[in-house]
Amino acid sequence: MLKYKTITGGVTAPKGFLAAGVEAAIKKAGKLDLAVLYSEVPAVAAGVYTTNKVKAAPLLVTMEHLQDGKAQAVLVNSGNANSCTGVEGLHKAKKTAAELAALLNIEVEDTIVTSTGVIGVQLPVERVLTGLKKAVQVLSVDGGHSAAEAIMTTDTSPKEMAVQLELGGQTVTIGAMCKGSGMIHPNMATMLGFITTDANISTEALNKALKYCVFKSFNMVSVDGDTSTNDMVVALANGMASNKVISLNSNDFILFRDALLVVCINLAKSIARDGEGATKLVEVQVKNALTEEDAKKVAMAVCQSSLVKTAIFGADANWGRIICATGYADADIDPNQIDIYLGAEKMAEKGIGVNFSEDRAREILEGDTIVITIDLNLGDHEATVWGCDLTYEYVKINADYRT
Amino acid sequence: MLKYKTITGGVTAPKGFLAAGVEAAIKKAGKLDLAVLYSEVPAVAAGVYTTNKVKAAPLLVTMEHLQDGKAQAVLVNSGNANSCTGVEGLHKAKKTAAELAALLNIEVEDTIVTSTGVIGVQLPVERVLTGLKKAVQVLSVDGGHSAAEAIMTTDTSPKEMAVQLELGGQTVTIGAMCKGSGMIHPNMATMLGFITTDANISTEALNKALKYCVFKSFNMVSVDGDTSTNDMVVALANGMASNKVISLNSNDFILFRDALLVVCINLAKSIARDGEGATKLVEVQVKNALTEEDAKKVAMAVCQSSLVKTAIFGADANWGRIICATGYADADIDPNQIDIYLGAEKMAEKGIGVNFSEDRAREILEGDTIVITIDLNLGDHEATVWGCDLTYEYVKINADYRT
Repeated sequence: MLKYKTITGGVTAPKGFLAAGVEAAIKKAGKLDLAVLYSEVPAVAAGVYTTNKVKAAPLLVTMEHLQDGKAQAVLVNSGNANSCTGVEGLHKAKKTAAELAALLNIEVEDTIVTSTGVIGVQLPVERVLTGLKKAVQVLSVDGGHSAAEAIMTTDTSPKEMAVQLELGGQTVTIGAMCKGSGMIHPNMATMLGFITTDANISTEALNKALKYCVFKSFNMVSVDGDTSTNDMVVALANGMASNKVISLNSNDFILFRDALLVVCINLAKSIARDGEGATKLVEVQVKNALTEEDAKKVAMAVCQSSLVKTAIFGADANWGRIICATGYADADIDPNQIDIYLGAEKMAEKGIGVNFSEDRAREILEGDTIVITIDLNLGDHEATVWGCDLTYEYVKINADYRT
Repeated sequence: MLKYKTITGGVTAPKGFLAAGVEAAIKKAGKLDLAVLYSEVPAVAAGVYTTNKVKAAPLLVTMEHLQDGKAQAVLVNSGNANSCTGVEGLHKAKKTAAELAALLNIEVEDTIVTSTGVIGVQLPVERVLTGLKKAVQVLSVDGGHSAAEAIMTTDTSPKEMAVQLELGGQTVTIGAMCKGSGMIHPNMATMLGFITTDANISTEALNKALKYCVFKSFNMVSVDGDTSTNDMVVALANGMASNKVISLNSNDFILFRDALLVVCINLAKSIARDGEGATKLVEVQVKNALTEEDAKKVAMAVCQSSLVKTAIFGADANWGRIICATGYADADIDPNQIDIYLGAEKMAEKGIGVNFSEDRAREILEGDTIVITIDLNLGDHEATVWGCDLTYEYVKINADYRT
């Protein structure tokens, strides 16, 4: 039995959250590029951040503000990453946080500021401040979708989701939005993800649930192997559902965490499917590895291989490239034990090719979701990673992104 | 002063080496696809092999045969990798080695067999055996170039080189050929490389010189991040130059090793420049790292980044992607100390963008060799890595390679 149900909406689906997405002229005319998300009451908050040693200015500010496990408002701009911008960039990020706090009459430590876009160009801070004022004026329960649109870069569609579950007789809602597309290769966190909930939950429980879910969702996505300087996923829980507080490792915790995981996996998959230039979602499942780490290494190597990705784009059942990537994944494997499946079609058994129907394989590869299963036949751990194919369009988008 | 001189020719330039490249009908009609290389006398031999855990059958046979540090003949076929072919593939690889030994009247342990091409398809061994007979019949000093042609897969041109140096009054010659193109990302060894020399050298000295050179040349190349199951570089030294034997760490050893390094770097660069679909050679130099390992990690991350590679293809001076890759390279760096140059043009100083001429940057990026320099300003170690841009043509070549 499903313990949650999917509802329409995104970050403003939980009680007490308002949002807005506006045009601040950071991107080209006609594009939303600034979002504000606000909780009517202070919320418990948790974040996971990029492991890139080069960290964007707003990320540094947010990491500091979230140290107390509390937040109430989020500012996001797209079109400029405010990364590699030195002291000037840090000063500008702080200025936007201060203005966000002033406009909403909240503590500056309760603000989260994030940016995504081109690296190494100074943030047009006046435009951000003007846009911010505009956004705060139109904050509403209906603003979730505009916000999801305003945080996009090369994404082709907004990514949002909401689910509801019952905890001790109370309805708890979890909402979320994220953006992905390029420079997507996770390590602790990736891309920008914003999760809201009206759950009443302790800081420790929210932290643990978020880390658990990010590891199994956003951290299992790779579009192009590039880990951004701006990645973060944050969760805000404002307690307005009035459920009994969710404490660490309680039964409610498991229920909440599993519903959160559904949201995170769904968004992670939507990021992979909408990877720059992608025509197909690729899901790589590795079974029966000696450790979960080994399973992840193999799944990630296969998912990231340019040769596997181009073969999928070309609908060519070149399983040799899959086993080759399995071999260099730096995981414990036995080449003579590996079975490989494309959809339900077995390609290789114990490391050797079997006769398979090329027609059936091509049919599978021409679908919009390609599932590759690699059975290592060694242990009982598994991992699933999501990615996409590598296409002409990826090259086109990235050959001239900046100018 | 140069201690060596470049001469025309390849693997048959040193005394006592014969070669041939013939058509064995493994590839499409009209393409050379089988090469034999032969030393008139038994040679001291050394090899470095792929670190992929999935190893092709001929590679396993060769590793066994080279354990005694001696070899006299090499068989290479292109068009089929004989990898992931199980017991049958191993049996076939051994059969070709036995036939090579029989035809040349040498010990089977003195044969080297190698394959390159599609993975997971059984080797058409009868064609190989027929081609082998043909090749042995036409072995000659003039056959080096045909051999270099016969080992190509998606390479657009044969890759060979020869140099001469004087050791104790004797002229010593080093010749080489290699193939690269796709599935190129080194780890101990990569692609196929064959080095011949008439130098008189001890097994230990040849081994050490080869490992040293491979680390600084073939192992510093990445076309697409995929480490093949068939990679190997072997060196044969037949002593016919009659120089005093080169022993480990002698002055002659240094002279020989440095000349060998020139050959290896030259071939490695030719592999990068001829990477699948490549329009440009990319050289990434990392300076002033805390360790050589750190320097290599950063250079490799930048060189492998799909975002950097596509920006170079599009002649877009997007240095933000370079510093981003530097940040996720898992090396000791200080983001606030990094200087980045494109050719002689400074793009960033202490981690922040500087004003640079977009015209001048585009001019540099439109050249056929792009040099990126990353000064970490932390220590005194450095590394140079070679790669290429990522283009529509790479996607095209690999979207339908197998069929």
